Amino acid sequence: MIDVAHLAGVSVKTVSRVVNHTPTVDAALTERVLEAIRELGFRRNDVAANLRSGRNTSTIGLVIEDLSNTFYSTIAAAVFEVSHRFNTQLITASSEETTSLEEEIVLDLCQRRVDGLIIVPTGNDQSYLQPEIDMGLPVVFVDRPPAGLNVDSVLIDNRKGARAAVEQLLSEGHRKIAVMVDSLHIYTMRERLIGAEEALCAAEVPPEDHIFEAWPHEPSDAAGVVAHLFDSPSPPTAVFCGNNRILMGAVAELVRRGEKTRVAGFDDFEFAGLLPHPVTVVGYDTPALGTLAAELLFRRIHGETLPPKHELLPTYLAERGIPPARRYG
Amino acid sequence: MIDVAHLAGVSVKTVSRVVNHTPTVDAALTERVLEAIRELGFRRNDVAANLRSGRNTSTIGLVIEDLSNTFYSTIAAAVFEVSHRFNTQLITASSEETTSLEEEIVLDLCQRRVDGLIIVPTGNDQSYLQPEIDMGLPVVFVDRPPAGLNVDSVLIDNRKGARAAVEQLLSEGHRKIAVMVDSLHIYTMRERLIGAEEALCAAEVPPEDHIFEAWPHEPSDAAGVVAHLFDSPSPPTAVFCGNNRILMGAVAELVRRGEKTRVAGFDDFEFAGLLPHPVTVVGYDTPALGTLAAELLFRRIHGETLPPKHELLPTYLAERGIPPARRYG
Repeated sequence: MIDVAHLAGVSVKTVSRVVNHTPTVDAALTERVLEAIRELGFRRNDVAANLRSGRNTSTIGLVIEDLSNTFYSTIAAAVFEVSHRFNTQLITASSEETTSLEEEIVLDLCQRRVDGLIIVPTGNDQSYLQPEIDMGLPVVFVDRPPAGLNVDSVLIDNRKGARAAVEQLLSEGHRKIAVMVDSLHIYTMRERLIGAEEALCAAEVPPEDHIFEAWPHEPSDAAGVVAHLFDSPSPPTAVFCGNNRILMGAVAELVRRGEKTRVAGFDDFEFAGLLPHPVTVVGYDTPALGTLAAELLFRRIHGETLPPKHELLPTYLAERGIPPARRYG
Repeated sequence: MIDVAHLAGVSVKTVSRVVNHTPTVDAALTERVLEAIRELGFRRNDVAANLRSGRNTSTIGLVIEDLSNTFYSTIAAAVFEVSHRFNTQLITASSEETTSLEEEIVLDLCQRRVDGLIIVPTGNDQSYLQPEIDMGLPVVFVDRPPAGLNVDSVLIDNRKGARAAVEQLLSEGHRKIAVMVDSLHIYTMRERLIGAEEALCAAEVPPEDHIFEAWPHEPSDAAGVVAHLFDSPSPPTAVFCGNNRILMGAVAELVRRGEKTRVAGFDDFEFAGLLPHPVTVVGYDTPALGTLAAELLFRRIHGETLPPKHELLPTYLAERGIPPARRYG
């Protein structure tokens, strides 16, 4: 801390005030202190630990897109379990898929001096967190990697999972496969699209038969896309859905039309077994995403200083939905 | 505050230490201070507001059964939205349906001096919160009322909803109706059972035809109950399910067996439209539970001192599931 003050040419008190976010510190002084902390390089963590010691609030923050979505709430439940084990309270916040809200919420959590953060990022740039990380704040990203930061992340192997599902459809003889994903602003959607594309290219499906129709968000959007596809002169024989809400919308429309189209989709879920149409789902261990992220965070909070870890969880394929033989008309 | 100190025969500082949970205060002294606060009756809130003033932490706590359950996470999302509007952070915790964990979590939140609490209670007695409430902590109960406390609550009209669903089945001529609910330790299950029972009694269905078979918790338990019922010599012609997970298990087993039994159940949900069996569901506005509870809490936090409010949200009946004509075998 003395070294930082010395290098920045300010008092130790000023360093302390910068680290503690005292709002009255001059912007230029703040920049000099942060610069000095950065320049001290490998001693950063010690400085930070020193600066942060005794300030443990026994709270961590979890910033996710939407708490009411089962996927995120399952992660939240797993994170809560780990934090409870470490006698730490969990502050949860939904960024509502809004970049500006993400930054506002994250910086508010920093100002409240949480001991660490777990984030499902929404925006395309999380470099606003660099000063906090430089000052020793442990941060773990989950489900989507950060942009502009090199810190811990726990992700699903989206690409391999999507590729495996589309390979399964191809192995059954399908060539005209409609791939439907949500907005390509979302990392997981880009990865799943790439995985599907890899499978189609490897099978030498001609580019004109790669169908990427639209980017549905709500199940009703997906139903609309399916309606459009099946009203066309040469509809696909198989459909790959980028997430469970797209799958729901697609299945609803296919069932409504009486189409026996082959369906595969990302995400396994409690209800999948009751879908009124056979589907191949790409599943993974959702609670493990939260558990691993939280355990990693607490190792950092407890002082572990290994290089950033990048965990990639495997996926599996499973058959869901009610087979035609068991349904009645 | 001076009055409290006077009545308790202690110093103002001691009152302050009791209110602030300073662990070194003698238990007998603490009891005398709390007693004095209680005795001051109608001035309680002023005392409390006085004691708590300037100590606003801009955090509220939400204690629910299980974050990963869509019903609770939808409530959490709505509470987050309101708390964000009031620049307040939300600490969430799952009691995991364990009485002792509920009390531990709630008292931990109190010690961290949250500005207010929203609770879905698990245990049969929340009187452990009385001292906190006496000292001015606003608390709102949601989905289930508290026991041993008279404070704000926001509930669903479970009884009327269940009664309406069973009346619907009766109006179609069904007399042998199986009613399946989860554990009767849960308030909502008791209310739904009573509502169903009211409908059966009003229709003069003889008691020997009231079927309350078991108390399934997991969908697979519900499937087992249905299997048992339909293996019996005189199976029911209709089934009423106390919640969505029981409904899922029941439908899965009925579809597996090819039974076209009439099904109704509590809870409307995104997936209900895709159920491979027609069902009548009892729906309600889940986000409104969280929104109303949070808005009530903030009115209390902002000093409103009306008598405890007990909101009861209405339910509706809706047809879900895929009609037989649209399915294919």
